[in-house]
Amino acid sequence: MISNEKIKELSKLNQKKYRDESGLFLVEGEHLVSEADKHGIVLEKYSIKDLDGFITIPKEKMKKICQTDTVVNQVALCKKIVKAEKTNHILILDRIQDPGNMGTLMRSAVSFGFNTIFLQDGCVDIYNDKVIRSSQGAIFKLNFLFGDALEFIKTLNDYQVFGTNVVSGIDVSKVETQSRFAVVLGNEGSGVSQDIQDYLQQNIYIKMLNTESLNVAIAGSIIMYELTKKLI
Amino acid sequence: MISNEKIKELSKLNQKKYRDESGLFLVEGEHLVSEADKHGIVLEKYSIKDLDGFITIPKEKMKKICQTDTVVNQVALCKKIVKAEKTNHILILDRIQDPGNMGTLMRSAVSFGFNTIFLQDGCVDIYNDKVIRSSQGAIFKLNFLFGDALEFIKTLNDYQVFGTNVVSGIDVSKVETQSRFAVVLGNEGSGVSQDIQDYLQQNIYIKMLNTESLNVAIAGSIIMYELTKKLI
Repeated sequence: MISNEKIKELSKLNQKKYRDESGLFLVEGEHLVSEADKHGIVLEKYSIKDLDGFITIPKEKMKKICQTDTVVNQVALCKKIVKAEKTNHILILDRIQDPGNMGTLMRSAVSFGFNTIFLQDGCVDIYNDKVIRSSQGAIFKLNFLFGDALEFIKTLNDYQVFGTNVVSGIDVSKVETQSRFAVVLGNEGSGVSQDIQDYLQQNIYIKMLNTESLNVAIAGSIIMYELTKKLI
Repeated sequence: MISNEKIKELSKLNQKKYRDESGLFLVEGEHLVSEADKHGIVLEKYSIKDLDGFITIPKEKMKKICQTDTVVNQVALCKKIVKAEKTNHILILDRIQDPGNMGTLMRSAVSFGFNTIFLQDGCVDIYNDKVIRSSQGAIFKLNFLFGDALEFIKTLNDYQVFGTNVVSGIDVSKVETQSRFAVVLGNEGSGVSQDIQDYLQQNIYIKMLNTESLNVAIAGSIIMYELTKKLI
């Protein structure tokens, strides 16, 4: 039977501070636990049922660990994913704050072959339970880099780096890509930081029938789709 | 000063049941209140500050009315939008349940000129506060139709009606559209209902580098973008 100390330790991982300190995070729900397992990052697995390979945990204790309203059957304690390489297509996220947007962008990034995500300081923590849930497991398939986006962009000498802008730039469907490219997406409210905009020479935008702003996860996904369409 | 009965009446509108009965709904936050006002659907406006045209409401009473964690400054009581015409491009939603997906799809629908949305029974209520918030006001610009999607599709004689499918069909970038068309998007978990799939002759899908499933709002937006691209 699981100890109260262990329960306390696990539930602490719902706070970013403890995830940062420990290099650990939690994954909730059968589907995600099994996905995490496939990627070899699971240290311990907990279930409310007696299951092979799982530590049994009473339902009322599970509630203390989990963030979801509905009680989940399984939880896994995972070590953070360290795959920090740069792939040919990179998504650079500048202070994306909504967990749903972050998770959704991860799904799209995997779908369209943007296998590296650079996270500017100020982005929502990717090990947040809502991010993991809306990524539907895509989080386990990506490389992540962290730090200052502008400094990072300056190192991308052999990449085309595209900014994004609601109103001006090159129509994304007309962009000619080389083999390596990166796309910068900006904060939900304020867009791409001014210093990054000033540094970048190319902005791309999405042609629309009506001047409505698009959700950043939508805009980013349409751009990733368009830029990789010719490669498929 | 606002009466306690009125507070009670307004806060009841957080439940779908009362919104259905009364034909009324609430809009929270300055931006959305001003957007609703522009569209002529506001009956009464409430503010925690003394403002022309607003009924003043104490901050602690505002908390009782609002759904958001952070207290908003303004709330508007609105009458439901009745614009039930069929435009040339229609989005048909088959049991979309996540409020964020619904609101995001509304933004994309306005952007790409899908000015009518048909809502199959079983969709999340569009007058839900989370839907309105993530629509960012796009909800006020659209026509809505409600009912049984298959029955509705059967009336669309002069439209091309496309189903959507993760794995098979025509590549959306290769579809030749006529002047009037509709797209059916399915439930987050189970996709388009079998009876609708059986009826429709054309499925479209999005080519991806990796076999990851896309979020439905992302998939729907990419499809709307592609189908209207040539029209712009």
